[in-house]
Amino acid sequence: MEFSRGRTFLFRVPEGEDLLEFVNRFAEAKEIKTGVVSAIGSLKDPKIGYFDGDINDYRIIELEGTFEMVSLVGNVSLRNEKPFAHIHVALGDGEGRLYGGHLFEGKVFVAEVFIQELKGSPLERKERENGLSLWEEEPLE
Amino acid sequence: MEFSRGRTFLFRVPEGEDLLEFVNRFAEAKEIKTGVVSAIGSLKDPKIGYFDGDINDYRIIELEGTFEMVSLVGNVSLRNEKPFAHIHVALGDGEGRLYGGHLFEGKVFVAEVFIQELKGSPLERKERENGLSLWEEEPLE
Amino acid sequence: MEFSRGRTFLFRVPEGEDLLEFVNRFAEAKEIKTGVVSAIGSLKDPKIGYFDGDINDYRIIELEGTFEMVSLVGNVSLRNEKPFAHIHVALGDGEGRLYGGHLFEGKVFVAEVFIQELKGSPLERKERENGLSLWEEEPLE
Repeated sequence: MEFSRGRTFLFRVPEGEDLLEFVNRFAEAKEIKTGVVSAIGSLKDPKIGYFDGDINDYRIIELEGTFEMVSLVGNVSLRNEKPFAHIHVALGDGEGRLYGGHLFEGKVFVAEVFIQELKGSPLERKERENGLSLWEEEPLE
Repeated sequence: MEFSRGRTFLFRVPEGEDLLEFVNRFAEAKEIKTGVVSAIGSLKDPKIGYFDGDINDYRIIELEGTFEMVSLVGNVSLRNEKPFAHIHVALGDGEGRLYGGHLFEGKVFVAEVFIQELKGSPLERKERENGLSLWEEEPLE
Repeated sequence: MEFSRGRTFLFRVPEGEDLLEFVNRFAEAKEIKTGVVSAIGSLKDPKIGYFDGDINDYRIIELEGTFEMVSLVGNVSLRNEKPFAHIHVALGDGEGRLYGGHLFEGKVFVAEVFIQELKGSPLERKERENGLSLWEEEPLE
Protein backbone atom coordinates (compact mmCIF):
# COMPACT_ATOMS: atom_id res chain seq x y z
CA MET A 1 0.00 0.00 0.00
CA GLU A 2 1.37 3.38 -0.95
CA PHE A 3 0.98 6.39 1.31
CA SER A 4 1.85 10.06 1.34
CA ARG A 5 3.56 11.53 4.37
CA GLY A 6 1.55 13.32 7.02
CA ARG A 7 2.69 14.99 10.22
CA THR A 8 5.99 14.25 11.96
CA PHE A 9 6.38 14.08 15.74
CA LEU A 10 9.42 13.75 18.00
CA PHE A 11 8.84 14.01 21.74
CA ARG A 12 9.67 12.77 25.21
CA VAL A 13 7.03 10.74 27.01
CA PRO A 14 6.55 11.82 30.65
CA GLU A 15 8.29 9.57 33.21
CA GLY A 16 6.00 7.02 34.83
CA GLU A 17 3.58 6.65 31.91
CA ASP A 18 2.93 3.22 30.45
CA LEU A 19 4.68 3.50 27.07
CA LEU A 20 2.28 1.52 24.88
CA GLU A 21 -0.78 3.08 26.45
CA PHE A 22 0.72 6.56 25.94
CA VAL A 23 1.51 5.96 22.25
CA ASN A 24 -2.06 4.74 21.73
CA ARG A 25 -3.48 7.78 23.51
CA PHE A 26 -1.17 10.07 21.52
CA ALA A 27 -2.29 8.52 18.23
CA GLU A 28 -5.92 8.86 19.22
CA ALA A 29 -5.54 12.47 20.40
CA LYS A 30 -3.75 13.45 17.17
CA GLU A 31 -6.05 11.30 15.01
CA ILE A 32 -3.16 9.34 13.51
CA LYS A 33 -4.77 6.49 11.59
CA THR A 34 -1.62 5.17 9.96
CA GLY A 35 2.03 5.69 10.80
CA VAL A 36 5.39 4.31 11.74
CA VAL A 37 6.99 4.59 15.16
CA SER A 38 10.54 4.31 16.47
CA ALA A 39 12.05 5.16 19.83
CA ILE A 40 14.86 4.71 22.32
CA GLY A 41 14.96 5.15 26.08
CA SER A 42 14.67 3.08 29.22
CA LEU A 43 11.74 1.02 30.54
CA LYS A 44 10.80 -0.33 33.97
CA ASP A 45 9.33 -3.80 34.58
CA PRO A 46 8.47 -4.46 30.92
CA LYS A 47 6.15 -7.28 29.87
CA ILE A 48 6.84 -8.62 26.41
CA GLY A 49 5.14 -11.30 24.37
CA TYR A 50 6.20 -14.21 22.18
CA PHE A 51 3.47 -15.48 19.88
CA ASP A 52 3.23 -19.22 20.34
CA GLY A 53 1.75 -20.83 17.22
CA ASP A 54 1.00 -24.02 19.16
CA ILE A 55 -1.57 -22.26 21.33
CA ASN A 56 -2.40 -19.39 18.92
CA ASP A 57 -1.71 -16.91 21.68
CA TYR A 58 1.03 -14.83 23.24
CA ARG A 59 3.28 -16.21 25.94
CA ILE A 60 3.99 -13.31 28.33
CA ILE A 61 7.55 -12.73 29.52
CA GLU A 62 7.77 -10.50 32.61
CA LEU A 63 11.08 -8.74 33.09
CA GLU A 64 11.96 -7.12 36.40
CA GLY A 65 13.93 -3.94 36.87
CA THR A 66 15.05 -1.19 34.52
CA PHE A 67 16.15 -1.96 30.96
CA GLU A 68 17.72 0.16 28.27
CA MET A 69 15.21 0.35 25.43
CA VAL A 70 17.77 -0.41 22.73
CA SER A 71 15.23 -0.31 19.91
CA LEU A 72 11.52 0.26 19.55
CA VAL A 73 10.12 -0.34 16.08
CA GLY A 74 6.46 -0.40 15.16
CA ASN A 75 3.46 1.06 13.44
CA VAL A 76 0.02 2.55 13.96
CA SER A 77 -3.06 1.37 12.08
CA LEU A 78 -6.77 0.91 12.76
CA ARG A 79 -8.28 -1.82 14.91
CA ASN A 80 -11.98 -1.66 15.70
CA GLU A 81 -11.92 1.77 14.05
CA LYS A 82 -9.44 3.15 16.57
CA PRO A 83 -5.71 3.88 16.21
CA PHE A 84 -3.74 0.89 17.45
CA ALA A 85 0.03 0.73 17.97
CA HIS A 86 1.87 -2.53 17.20
CA ILE A 87 5.29 -2.28 18.79
CA HIS A 88 8.33 -4.53 19.27
CA VAL A 89 11.17 -3.70 21.66
CA ALA A 90 14.71 -4.83 22.37
CA LEU A 91 15.70 -4.34 26.02
CA GLY A 92 19.16 -4.40 27.58
CA ASP A 93 20.01 -5.38 31.16
CA GLY A 94 22.92 -4.17 33.31
CA GLU A 95 25.29 -6.66 31.68
CA GLY A 96 24.28 -5.55 28.17
CA ARG A 97 22.33 -8.74 27.43
CA LEU A 98 19.27 -8.22 25.24
CA TYR A 99 15.71 -9.47 25.59
CA GLY A 100 12.78 -8.60 23.40
CA GLY A 101 9.44 -9.25 21.80
CA HIS A 102 6.01 -7.71 21.36
CA LEU A 103 5.51 -4.84 23.83
CA PHE A 104 2.59 -5.31 26.22
CA GLU A 105 3.53 -3.17 29.20
CA GLY A 106 6.40 -1.10 30.54
CA LYS A 107 6.69 2.04 32.60
CA VAL A 108 8.65 4.88 31.05
CA PHE A 109 11.87 5.92 32.71
CA VAL A 110 12.93 7.68 29.49
CA ALA A 111 11.24 7.46 26.06
CA GLU A 112 12.17 9.57 23.06
CA VAL A 113 9.56 8.72 20.45
CA PHE A 114 9.40 9.46 16.72
CA ILE A 115 6.11 9.09 14.86
CA GLN A 116 5.72 9.60 11.12
CA GLU A 117 2.07 9.84 10.15
CA LEU A 118 1.13 8.33 6.77
CA LYS A 119 -1.87 9.51 4.76
CA GLY A 120 -3.88 7.27 2.46
CA SER A 121 -6.32 4.42 2.55
CA PRO A 122 -5.99 3.19 6.18
CA LEU A 123 -4.73 -0.30 7.00
CA GLU A 124 -7.15 -2.22 9.21
CA ARG A 125 -6.39 -5.06 11.59
CA LYS A 126 -8.82 -7.94 11.59
CA GLU A 127 -8.79 -11.14 13.60
CA ARG A 128 -7.25 -13.96 11.52
CA GLU A 129 -7.51 -17.73 11.88
CA ASN A 130 -4.14 -17.92 13.61
CA GLY A 131 -5.36 -15.72 16.48
CA LEU A 132 -3.50 -12.61 15.35
CA SER A 133 -5.04 -9.31 14.38
CA LEU A 134 -3.51 -8.46 11.00
CA TRP A 135 -3.85 -6.34 7.86
CA GLU A 136 -4.72 -7.94 4.54
CA GLU A 137 -1.71 -9.56 2.93
CA GLU A 138 -0.35 -7.57 0.00
CA PRO A 139 0.86 -9.90 -2.73
CA LEU A 140 3.08 -8.70 -5.56
CA GLU A 141 1.26 -8.81 -8.88
CA MET B 1 24.82 11.70 0.06
CA GLU B 2 21.71 13.83 0.17
CA PHE B 3 18.41 12.57 -1.21
CA SER B 4 14.88 13.78 -1.66
CA ARG B 5 12.01 11.60 -0.53
CA GLY B 6 10.20 9.40 -3.00
CA ARG B 7 7.28 7.03 -2.46
CA THR B 8 6.30 5.58 0.92
CA PHE B 9 5.07 2.01 1.39
CA LEU B 10 3.63 0.17 4.39
CA PHE B 11 2.35 -3.35 3.79
CA ARG B 12 2.04 -6.89 5.07
CA VAL B 13 4.08 -9.57 3.29
CA PRO B 14 2.06 -12.72 2.54
CA GLU B 15 2.65 -15.59 4.98
CA GLY B 16 5.11 -18.19 3.75
CA GLU B 17 7.19 -15.87 1.56
CA ASP B 18 10.92 -15.63 2.12
CA LEU B 19 11.23 -12.14 3.61
CA LEU B 20 14.50 -10.97 2.02
CA GLU B 21 13.57 -12.38 -1.36
CA PHE B 22 10.17 -10.63 -1.17
CA VAL B 23 11.68 -7.24 -0.29
CA ASN B 24 14.09 -7.58 -3.22
CA ARG B 25 11.24 -8.51 -5.58
CA PHE B 26 9.14 -5.63 -4.22
CA ALA B 27 11.96 -3.14 -4.78
CA GLU B 28 12.50 -4.44 -8.29
CA ALA B 29 8.78 -4.39 -9.17
CA LYS B 30 8.40 -0.81 -7.88
CA GLU B 31 11.77 0.27 -9.32
CA ILE B 32 13.08 1.45 -5.95
CA LYS B 33 16.77 2.18 -6.51
CA THR B 34 17.46 3.71 -3.12
CA GLY B 35 15.54 3.54 0.13
CA VAL B 36 15.38 2.66 3.80
CA VAL B 37 13.49 -0.28 5.24
CA SER B 38 12.16 -1.15 8.69
CA ALA B 39 9.80 -3.87 9.86
CA ILE B 40 8.48 -6.00 12.68
CA GLY B 41 6.81 -9.39 12.68
CA SER B 42 7.69 -13.01 13.17
CA LEU B 43 10.03 -15.27 11.15
CA LYS B 44 10.38 -19.04 10.78
CA ASP B 45 13.72 -20.86 10.61
CA PRO B 46 15.80 -17.74 9.98
CA LYS B 47 19.40 -17.90 8.77
CA ILE B 48 21.52 -14.95 9.83
CA GLY B 49 25.10 -14.05 9.13
CA TYR B 50 28.07 -12.76 11.10
CA PHE B 51 30.83 -11.34 8.95
CA ASP B 52 34.08 -12.92 10.00
CA GLY B 53 37.03 -10.67 9.15
CA ASP B 54 39.45 -13.58 9.56
CA ILE B 55 38.00 -15.43 6.58
CA ASN B 56 36.52 -12.38 4.77
CA ASP B 57 33.18 -14.14 4.60
CA TYR B 58 29.93 -14.63 6.48
CA ARG B 59 29.53 -17.30 9.10
CA ILE B 60 25.95 -18.58 8.80
CA ILE B 61 23.89 -19.07 11.96
CA GLU B 62 20.82 -21.27 11.44
CA LEU B 63 18.02 -20.75 13.95
CA GLU B 64 15.21 -23.28 14.25
CA GLY B 65 11.61 -22.47 15.01
CA THR B 66 9.58 -19.27 15.07
CA PHE B 67 11.11 -16.02 16.32
CA GLU B 68 9.60 -12.63 17.03
CA MET B 69 11.20 -10.21 14.56
CA VAL B 70 11.94 -7.57 17.18
CA SER B 71 13.61 -5.22 14.72
CA LEU B 72 14.40 -5.17 11.05
CA VAL B 73 16.55 -2.25 9.89
CA GLY B 74 18.09 -1.89 6.46
CA ASN B 75 18.31 -0.19 3.13
CA VAL B 76 17.93 -0.67 -0.61
CA SER B 77 20.58 0.36 -3.12
CA LEU B 78 21.96 -0.89 -6.43
CA ARG B 79 24.15 -3.96 -6.87
CA ASN B 80 24.95 -5.12 -10.38
CA GLU B 81 22.43 -2.50 -11.55
CA LYS B 82 19.56 -4.15 -9.65
CA PRO B 83 17.84 -3.10 -6.41
CA PHE B 84 19.46 -4.94 -3.51
CA ALA B 85 18.20 -4.99 0.09
CA HIS B 86 20.77 -5.05 2.91
CA ILE B 87 18.92 -6.03 6.07
CA HIS B 88 19.78 -6.78 9.70
CA VAL B 89 17.34 -8.41 12.12
CA ALA B 90 16.96 -8.99 15.86
CA LEU B 91 15.00 -12.15 16.66
CA GLY B 92 13.43 -13.22 19.95
CA ASP B 93 12.84 -16.76 21.13
CA GLY B 94 10.13 -18.06 23.48
CA GLU B 95 12.11 -16.98 26.53
CA GLY B 96 12.62 -13.45 25.16
CA ARG B 97 16.32 -13.99 24.42
CA LEU B 98 17.55 -12.14 21.33
CA TYR B 99 19.69 -13.31 18.43
CA GLY B 100 20.58 -11.36 15.36
CA GLY B 101 22.76 -10.46 12.42
CA HIS B 102 22.64 -10.02 8.67
CA LEU B 103 19.44 -11.53 7.23
CA PHE B 104 20.01 -14.32 4.70
CA GLU B 105 16.81 -16.34 4.89
CA GLY B 106 13.61 -16.59 6.87
CA LYS B 107 10.05 -17.54 6.09
CA VAL B 108 7.42 -14.95 6.92
CA PHE B 109 4.91 -15.79 9.60
CA VAL B 110 4.08 -12.08 9.94
CA ALA B 111 5.95 -9.14 8.39
CA GLU B 112 4.78 -5.52 8.48
CA VAL B 113 7.24 -3.67 6.29
CA PHE B 114 7.87 0.06 5.84
CA ILE B 115 9.88 1.28 2.86
CA GLN B 116 10.79 4.91 2.27
CA GLU B 117 12.07 5.44 -1.25
CA LEU B 118 14.85 8.03 -1.68
CA LYS B 119 15.43 9.91 -4.91
CA GLY B 120 18.81 11.14 -6.06
CA SER B 121 22.08 9.86 -7.37
CA PRO B 122 21.88 6.10 -6.57
CA LEU B 123 24.29 4.43 -4.18
CA GLU B 124 26.04 1.45 -5.76
CA ARG B 125 27.51 -1.57 -4.03
CA LYS B 126 30.86 -2.77 -5.31
CA GLU B 127 33.01 -5.64 -4.17
CA ARG B 128 35.70 -4.37 -1.77
CA GLU B 129 39.01 -5.89 -0.70
CA ASN B 130 37.52 -7.15 2.55
CA GLY B 131 35.02 -9.35 0.69
CA LEU B 132 32.02 -7.08 1.34
CA SER B 133 29.93 -5.34 -1.27
CA LEU B 134 29.81 -1.70 -0.17
CA TRP B 135 29.08 1.87 -1.26
CA GLU B 136 31.88 4.39 -1.58
CA GLU B 137 32.90 5.81 1.79
CA GLU B 138 31.65 9.34 2.34
CA PRO B 139 34.25 11.35 4.24
CA LEU B 140 33.39 14.68 5.85
CA GLU B 141 35.18 17.55 4.14
CA MET C 1 6.47 18.42 19.31
CA GLU C 2 5.55 18.58 15.64
CA PHE C 3 8.18 19.07 12.97
CA SER C 4 8.39 19.42 9.23
CA ARG C 5 10.88 17.33 7.31
CA GLY C 6 14.24 18.74 6.34
CA ARG C 7 17.08 17.14 4.41
CA THR C 8 17.56 13.37 4.05
CA PHE C 9 20.96 11.67 4.13
CA LEU C 10 22.07 8.10 3.46
CA PHE C 11 25.79 7.41 3.46
CA ARG C 12 28.61 5.08 4.41
CA VAL C 13 30.91 6.18 7.22
CA PRO C 14 34.60 5.67 6.42
CA GLU C 15 36.15 2.57 7.99
CA GLY C 16 38.06 3.24 11.18
CA GLU C 17 36.08 6.28 12.29
CA ASP C 18 34.48 6.31 15.73
CA LEU C 19 30.79 6.02 14.84
CA LEU C 20 29.24 8.29 17.48
CA GLU C 21 31.90 10.93 17.04
CA PHE C 22 31.39 10.85 13.26
CA VAL C 23 27.60 11.25 13.51
CA ASN C 24 28.10 14.21 15.83
CA ARG C 25 30.62 15.79 13.45
CA PHE C 26 28.30 15.13 10.51
CA ALA C 27 25.37 16.80 12.30
CA GLU C 28 27.52 19.76 13.18
CA ALA C 29 28.96 20.13 9.67
CA LYS C 30 25.48 19.96 8.10
CA GLU C 31 23.92 22.09 10.87
CA ILE C 32 21.35 19.44 11.74
CA LYS C 33 19.69 20.67 14.94
CA THR C 34 16.98 18.02 15.11
CA GLY C 35 16.65 14.66 13.42
CA VAL C 36 16.28 10.92 13.62
CA VAL C 37 19.01 8.41 12.88
CA SER C 38 19.07 4.73 11.99
CA ALA C 39 21.85 2.49 10.73
CA ILE C 40 23.22 -1.00 10.26
CA GLY C 41 26.77 -2.25 9.85
CA SER C 42 29.54 -3.72 11.94
CA LEU C 43 31.46 -2.20 14.88
CA LYS C 44 34.81 -2.97 16.53
CA ASP C 45 35.41 -2.93 20.29
CA PRO C 46 32.18 -1.11 21.15
CA LYS C 47 31.57 0.44 24.56
CA ILE C 48 27.94 0.61 25.54
CA GLY C 49 26.21 2.00 28.61
CA TYR C 50 23.45 0.91 30.96
CA PHE C 51 22.02 3.74 33.04
CA ASP C 52 22.04 2.67 36.65
CA GLY C 53 19.38 4.56 38.62
CA ASP C 54 21.04 3.57 41.91
CA ILE C 55 24.14 5.62 41.13
CA ASN C 56 22.52 8.07 38.66
CA ASP C 57 25.20 7.26 36.14
CA TYR C 58 26.05 4.94 33.30
CA ARG C 59 27.68 1.59 33.88
CA ILE C 60 30.06 1.03 30.94
CA ILE C 61 30.11 -2.36 29.23
CA GLU C 62 33.21 -2.95 27.10
CA LEU C 63 32.83 -5.50 24.35
CA GLU C 64 35.85 -6.93 22.58
CA GLY C 65 36.04 -7.85 18.93
CA THR C 66 33.84 -7.18 15.93
CA PHE C 67 30.06 -7.17 16.24
CA GLU C 68 27.29 -6.98 13.66
CA MET C 69 25.46 -3.71 14.30
CA VAL C 70 22.02 -5.28 14.12
CA SER C 71 20.20 -2.04 14.84
CA LEU C 72 21.12 1.56 15.51
CA VAL C 73 18.23 3.81 16.50
CA GLY C 74 18.56 7.36 17.78
CA ASN C 75 18.09 11.05 17.35
CA VAL C 76 19.88 14.38 17.10
CA SER C 77 18.94 17.40 19.21
CA LEU C 78 20.72 20.30 20.87
CA ARG C 79 22.88 20.08 23.98
CA ASN C 80 24.83 23.13 25.08
CA GLU C 81 23.68 24.70 21.79
CA LYS C 82 25.44 22.05 19.71
CA PRO C 83 23.99 19.09 17.77
CA PHE C 84 24.15 15.99 19.96
CA ALA C 85 23.40 12.43 18.87
CA HIS C 86 21.68 10.07 21.33
CA ILE C 87 22.11 6.56 19.98
CA HIS C 88 21.28 3.02 21.10
CA VAL C 89 22.70 -0.07 19.41
CA ALA C 90 22.09 -3.82 19.30
CA LEU C 91 25.25 -5.80 18.57
CA GLY C 92 25.61 -9.42 17.49
CA ASP C 93 28.55 -11.71 18.20
CA GLY C 94 29.80 -14.66 16.12
CA GLU C 95 27.18 -16.97 17.66
CA GLY C 96 24.36 -14.52 16.89
CA ARG C 97 23.89 -13.51 20.54
CA LEU C 98 22.88 -9.88 21.01
CA TYR C 99 24.21 -7.22 23.38
CA GLY C 100 23.20 -3.62 23.51
CA GLY C 101 22.69 -0.30 25.22
CA HIS C 102 23.58 3.35 24.90
CA LEU C 103 26.43 3.83 22.39
CA PHE C 104 29.53 5.45 23.85
CA GLU C 105 32.30 4.24 21.55
CA GLY C 106 32.88 1.88 18.66
CA LYS C 107 35.15 1.86 15.64
CA VAL C 108 33.41 1.55 12.28
CA PHE C 109 34.08 -1.56 10.25
CA VAL C 110 30.94 -0.85 8.20
CA ALA C 111 28.24 1.77 8.91
CA GLU C 112 25.38 2.63 6.56
CA VAL C 113 23.67 5.58 8.20
CA PHE C 114 20.31 7.23 7.50
CA ILE C 115 19.58 10.69 8.92
CA GLN C 116 16.27 12.48 8.50
CA GLU C 117 16.56 16.12 9.47
CA LEU C 118 13.51 17.65 11.17
CA LYS C 119 12.73 21.37 11.02
CA GLY C 120 10.93 23.26 13.76
CA SER C 121 11.45 24.52 17.26
CA PRO C 122 14.59 22.59 18.37
CA LEU C 123 14.50 20.13 21.26
CA GLU C 124 17.10 20.91 23.90
CA ARG C 125 18.73 18.54 26.35
CA LYS C 126 19.15 19.83 29.89
CA GLU C 127 20.63 18.13 32.91
CA ARG C 128 17.83 16.60 35.02
CA GLU C 129 17.77 15.56 38.70
CA ASN C 130 18.29 11.91 37.79
CA GLY C 131 21.64 12.67 36.17
CA LEU C 132 20.38 12.37 32.58
CA SER C 133 20.38 15.09 29.97
CA LEU C 134 16.83 15.15 28.61
CA TRP C 135 14.26 17.18 26.68
CA GLU C 136 11.23 18.62 28.45
CA GLU C 137 8.52 16.01 28.95
CA GLU C 138 5.61 16.40 26.56
CA PRO C 139 2.36 15.56 28.32
CA LEU C 140 -0.85 14.96 26.39
CA GLU C 141 -3.37 17.69 27.07
